[in-house]
Amino acid sequence: MGPLIKGSAATIAVLFLSEIIYKLYLHWVSKQCKSSHNEREKKRDEIMEVFFFPDKTIACKTHFLGETPCFKDKCKYSHEKTSLSELYRHLSSCRRTMDVCVFVLTCADLADIIVTMHRRGVVVRIITDDEQVNISGSQIWRFRKEGIMVRTDNSSYNMHHKFVVVDCQLLINGSFNWTRQAITGNQENVFVTNNSKITKSFLEEFEKLWEQFDPKNQHRT
Amino acid sequence: MGPLIKGSAATIAVLFLSEIIYKLYLHWVSKQCKSSHNEREKKRDEIMEVFFFPDKTIACKTHFLGETPCFKDKCKYSHEKTSLSELYRHLSSCRRTMDVCVFVLTCADLADIIVTMHRRGVVVRIITDDEQVNISGSQIWRFRKEGIMVRTDNSSYNMHHKFVVVDCQLLINGSFNWTRQAITGNQENVFVTNNSKITKSFLEEFEKLWEQFDPKNQHRT
Repeated sequence: MGPLIKGSAATIAVLFLSEIIYKLYLHWVSKQCKSSHNEREKKRDEIMEVFFFPDKTIACKTHFLGETPCFKDKCKYSHEKTSLSELYRHLSSCRRTMDVCVFVLTCADLADIIVTMHRRGVVVRIITDDEQVNISGSQIWRFRKEGIMVRTDNSSYNMHHKFVVVDCQLLINGSFNWTRQAITGNQENVFVTNNSKITKSFLEEFEKLWEQFDPKNQHRT
Repeated sequence: MGPLIKGSAATIAVLFLSEIIYKLYLHWVSKQCKSSHNEREKKRDEIMEVFFFPDKTIACKTHFLGETPCFKDKCKYSHEKTSLSELYRHLSSCRRTMDVCVFVLTCADLADIIVTMHRRGVVVRIITDDEQVNISGSQIWRFRKEGIMVRTDNSSYNMHHKFVVVDCQLLINGSFNWTRQAITGNQENVFVTNNSKITKSFLEEFEKLWEQFDPKNQHRT
């Protein structure tokens, strides 16, 4: 092989390797962009929030849950973000299923959301404490009248959870019972996450209790 | 430049580019390993747990909190993992500070952990509901006798939280009051995380309430 052929072969090799380097560089750049994009996506998608009660003002239901914002000039309720308005936002994001597992439900405003969801075709299931069903202001009979499925423990112990799973993917949990006092008086917290591991655990707990509190499986403890 | 020189230059270029490709390859491999390691590290470090009550058996305090495991042949308590033993594990991991913000504290076994921590030099602060201080089995007077700092709301509303922040970095939160009934009878949940955003929010809430419930800042609501 003469030096001329050797030179040409080497030149081809240089071009070939330059092409490889260029491709590797493009691959690396694309990987960086993708990774950064995924990171942004992950951050954007991950919900991990907490809000505390009591609220100083009562959130305007029309403003936060109505089809249009409230335009009343002198509305006595708040149009600013509050803990209750955040709770409204998360609950009203529901499209398919709402699994509610709450010790006490006496707040008519929060019950309204459940009824609205049910009427829209959302599959709502409610678990609550048997001894709270008949207390003053209880919304349970209203739910049952609407045809919403409700199950209760049959026990002297408390069904003490205060969580909701929205569309099998968003968990709302904390110390917060659905009472007016919890909104405006008590010190309370509500934690919201779409972390799949945690939400799945709560959903499994819901299914377990739903089965356990099926009247045909119950005996008083 | 003769073809021989051209050939030699091209050969050097080939060798040079091969070296670059090799270095790029090593860099890529190292990056992959590092990324995978970070992923593992991240997974290992992130705490995101939930456990549910009631427990079917009572966790053995000696076994889970003692300096050595329980060796009793016929110990009547459980040596298997339970929700209570998990709670013991997280609480006993405390080394510096324990900020407890719980509505009712009547469980002597859980109170023992607080007292032990305090005696070991952990800075313990407790916030609880004023109306729960004098109920049967309340551990508050025991804490005060030990010199542990306790503050209460001075309100007809409930200080209804049930959370603990351990060493400013681990949050324990849920529906769980520190009562015997919550361990063995009620349906309850306890969520544990070291997510810094969430833990920070709860710590700020604790500091806010600690200040608010300082006797010199209080007036009955």
